Amino acid sequence: MKKIDIGANAFVYPMPVTLLGTLVNAKPNFMALGWITRVNANPPMVGLGVGRHHYTCPGIAEAKAFSINYPSAEMMQVTDYCGMATGEKVDKSSLFEVFYGKLKTAPMIAECTLCMECRLVQTIEFPTNTLFIGEIVGSYAEEICLADGKPDIKKMDPLLLTMPDNRYWSVG
Amino acid sequence: MKKIDIGANAFVYPMPVTLLGTLVNAKPNFMALGWITRVNANPPMVGLGVGRHHYTCPGIAEAKAFSINYPSAEMMQVTDYCGMATGEKVDKSSLFEVFYGKLKTAPMIAECTLCMECRLVQTIEFPTNTLFIGEIVGSYAEEICLADGKPDIKKMDPLLLTMPDNRYWSVG
Repeated sequence: MKKIDIGANAFVYPMPVTLLGTLVNAKPNFMALGWITRVNANPPMVGLGVGRHHYTCPGIAEAKAFSINYPSAEMMQVTDYCGMATGEKVDKSSLFEVFYGKLKTAPMIAECTLCMECRLVQTIEFPTNTLFIGEIVGSYAEEICLADGKPDIKKMDPLLLTMPDNRYWSVG
Repeated sequence: MKKIDIGANAFVYPMPVTLLGTLVNAKPNFMALGWITRVNANPPMVGLGVGRHHYTCPGIAEAKAFSINYPSAEMMQVTDYCGMATGEKVDKSSLFEVFYGKLKTAPMIAECTLCMECRLVQTIEFPTNTLFIGEIVGSYAEEICLADGKPDIKKMDPLLLTMPDNRYWSVG
């Protein structure tokens, strides 16, 4: 085996593909997000690394809430659009059927297989990105994507992403 | 479509499977880690949510460094062992061939397809987990896993994990 030095800008292989839902200027907005992980077990908390230039950022800061939504592989095209088009220029509020849970400022996507609503608990600034920490206060799954009451990844058929080649994959 | 409330303890679908390498009491130790994401674009930084009870945690704090290693699907058994057996009770230092890069306190795994060495830059405490933030200072890929000089996920054949069912998957 031979290791090649490929520099410092390595990624997580693969990344999940989620749609980050926010209210920005009182309108639902959605961006594609792969930089997400659970950060705490109890209570359940997630962390999102979002580029500071994104239209989404002031929305999270103001609403103090956001949602994480899992598109299925068949939603690849609209998901990709949400990742390419900024809410600054296009209105993404009517791309999906929106619903709300306990929080009234975390718009969730009815078409997605699993949606999590999160209350913002902390914001940590890094040089180019903001790390938003949210507590999951509720999650909602498509009935047909559950097995024994738990999300079944084969039924969810989520998208995966790799960087820097920016290609989508599915779970094998 | 019908959404079912499945409670707050939702996960990221799917999670990558990595091996987190540390020096603990001057000996290499490796734990399985799925709670990881990039958190900053430039410089490249990752965040890891590690349960505070893990043997790994004081090692990162002392060495101020760690590594992230990607096992291939054929390394599933030894990866699972690293996730089940604590370094407190078993010596995992000789499970792999270890090598070092720029940092002398971030042991990396020669058998893995891609290894990243990280300098600890920040530690954030949550109720049950510690979020370690590291800057990637170097990464090293198997020559046969590269395409155009970049990691090719089909060649890497990395493992995926789902919770709470704790099952492994591959990229399709």
